[in-house]
Parts: sequence; structure tokens; C-alpha cells
Amino acid sequence: MTFERLQKQIDFVIEVDKIKHIFRHTKLIDGSRYENDAEHSWHLATMAMVLKEHANEDELDVGKVIRMLLVHDIVEIDAGDTFAYDKEGHEDKNDREMAAADRIFGLLPQDQARRMHKLWSEFEARQTPEAKFAAALDRLQPLIHNYHTEGKAWQKHDISLKQVMKRNKHIKEGSEVLWEFALDLLNRAVQQGYLTADVPKEEGAE
Amino acid sequence: MTFERLQKQIDFVIEVDKIKHIFRHTKLIDGSRYENDAEHSWHLATMAMVLKEHANEDELDVGKVIRMLLVHDIVEIDAGDTFAYDKEGHEDKNDREMAAADRIFGLLPQDQARRMHKLWSEFEARQTPEAKFAAALDRLQPLIHNYHTEGKAWQKHDISLKQVMKRNKHIKEGSEVLWEFALDLLNRAVQQGYLTADVPKEEGAE
Repeated sequence: MTFERLQKQIDFVIEVDKIKHIFRHTKLIDGSRYENDAEHSWHLATMAMVLKEHANEDELDVGKVIRMLLVHDIVEIDAGDTFAYDKEGHEDKNDREMAAADRIFGLLPQDQARRMHKLWSEFEARQTPEAKFAAALDRLQPLIHNYHTEGKAWQKHDISLKQVMKRNKHIKEGSEVLWEFALDLLNRAVQQGYLTADVPKEEGAE
Repeated sequence: MTFERLQKQIDFVIEVDKIKHIFRHTKLIDGSRYENDAEHSWHLATMAMVLKEHANEDELDVGKVIRMLLVHDIVEIDAGDTFAYDKEGHEDKNDREMAAADRIFGLLPQDQARRMHKLWSEFEARQTPEAKFAAALDRLQPLIHNYHTEGKAWQKHDISLKQVMKRNKHIKEGSEVLWEFALDLLNRAVQQGYLTADVPKEEGAE
């Protein structure tokens, strides 16, 4: 047999190893160091297994959610991690990530490249139940990490409750339950002084 | 609502963050540092997405393969990573890992703990098509890493081709194609001096 098709797949497998070098702005739960995208993606996919019952949509294809989460940050190998609250970085984020998707998914055989691109685009568009739930987990996980590292990441970047809520409110589109949990966590973060409450309660609770 | 069930799930999600501190004996492909279990598990699950067509069994539930791979090393949070060629470490590996599974999966609500334990046991037993293919990927990935880091891990532990082949030959049970690819990779490793060829060719090719 020739390994031509397999070799393309292996080239992709080798290339995506680089995601282990892409560091996020979130620390591990013990606060010892920053988390990288491979660890983050593993954590989210595992969370999907455990938390799927809380998705708003009962008929969710959790296998698809998991596959989305496994590949959602691969584009950051080229495009880098754009910090959630970095306005400037978000201006050209789409262009940078689209070029990255073309190059990296393009290492795969054409049929797989197309499917991978489609899966990633579906995640990014956040329109389907699977994409909404995947996005909810992608938002919830750093909140849990930030809470357990006493809000150091929020404080370092001078992020307030209002910003955290605005940035994360679409958790609700994927899971009302997890959004309720997130609100409770954020309230505790404020009470414990991990996060600045800079808004009147009514506005914060929108 | 009460968060009792959800809180157990979140406790599990927080606990398994520790897998990011469990280091393997395999280096990243650029050789810069050792890989941890979260990164390894992410890589394997992503490989399952890309390489599933090479499984011996056509009717494979790849979603199950992915879920197995996501959780297969969680027990190492307590039991540690046992080096593939460590005979002594393997003597009590099962006991240590079973106790770990009881504790860590036991953080989940009972129904989920049972399912997770079953999934992990199925992986360990390597009897079903899904477990065989998952195990094949779990063996193939470090071979790729060792090859691309010029066999440093093999040399450090004085591992020969014969040992590598014996240890990894069950790749074939999950995928004949990937085993053929692995053999080709190992032959190249020997040719390039990354790995010691200590056996006559006929025996090596068994």
C-alpha cells in the first residue's frame, strides 16, 4: 500500500502538536502556571462528557460537541490566543484565524480538511445547539479556573464583574443551568474580593 | 434549583485539572519538554477523529473511542505514569489504578461514576473494537514523538527495537494499517540511528 493519504493525516497530527505551546491567559487551578490550548481543549471535551445533561437542547449530539471542542483552538497555532478582553486583538481575529484554518486543516486530505473546516466554522458561528453548548463550556471553564486562583487573571487585567458578565452571558444560550451556576460563582467571587463589583446589582443581573 | 448533582460534576471537573501535572516519558515533537497527560489525551482524541478510517473494524463507534481516550489516563492523577518499559512499576499498576478510579470517578454522581468506570475498564481490557483502536493510538502517538525527537527517550532508557516492537505490536489488533506505518517508522528510526536494531530481521518482523 502507499501511505500517501495516511501521511497527510500524520502530517496534521504532527503539526497540531504545536498547540501544546500556545498559552492562554488562564492559570491551572493550583495557580502554578498558565494553561495551554491542548490542556484547555482536553478539559472542555471531558466537561462535555460530564455536563451534557445541562444543555438546553435535549437532543444534543454530544459527540459533535466533543469533536468541536477538540479542534476549536487549533487555529491558534498560527493566530495565537486572543485574550477575551483584548479589543484590538479581536479586530483582525477572524482574518487571522481563517487563514490559519486554511493552512492547518489544509494539511489533511481534502475531504477531511473540508469537514474539519465546517466543524470549526459551526463552532465559531454559535448557531446550532452543539455550537452553543460547546461555547458555553469554553466560557465556563476559565471562570472556574479564575475563581479557584482567587481572580488573579481578572485583577491583572483590571477586569470587572460587568465585563465578565457581558463576555460570558452567552453561556445561557447553551445552558441555562450552567449560566445560573456561573452567576452564583461570580457572586461568590465578588463577595470574596476576587472580582470588582462596579455596577449596580440590577444592571449586573441582566 | 439545588446544585447538588452539578456540584459533584464540577468537583470532578476541578479534580481532573491535576492531570495537567502528570508528566509522561515522551517529549513534545519539538523536543523542548516532556508531555503531560492532558496534552497526550487531547492528542489521542484528535488522532481518533482523523485516523478512524484505519481501524480494522468498519463499524467502530468513534465517539466511544474518543471518550475512552479522554479519560483513559485520569487514574494517573493518583497512580502516576508508569513508564512503558518499567517492569517493577507494572507489577502493582492495576491495584494502584483501580483505587484511583474508585476515588476519582467516585466524585461524580453515582450513575456517571459507574459509566465512567465501565468505559475505563473497557479501555483497559482491550477486548472491544473501540478499546483496541484506542489502544493502538495510545501506542502509536509516542512512537511518532520518539521518532521526531530522534529517539532520545529510547536511548535514555536503553530501549531496543525488539522491546519497542514487543511493547507496541498490539497496534495491529486495532489497525493493521497503523501497525504497518509504525513498522516503517521504526525501520527508519533504526536506519537513522535513533533506535538500536538488536535482533535479526526475520525475528524483528514477526
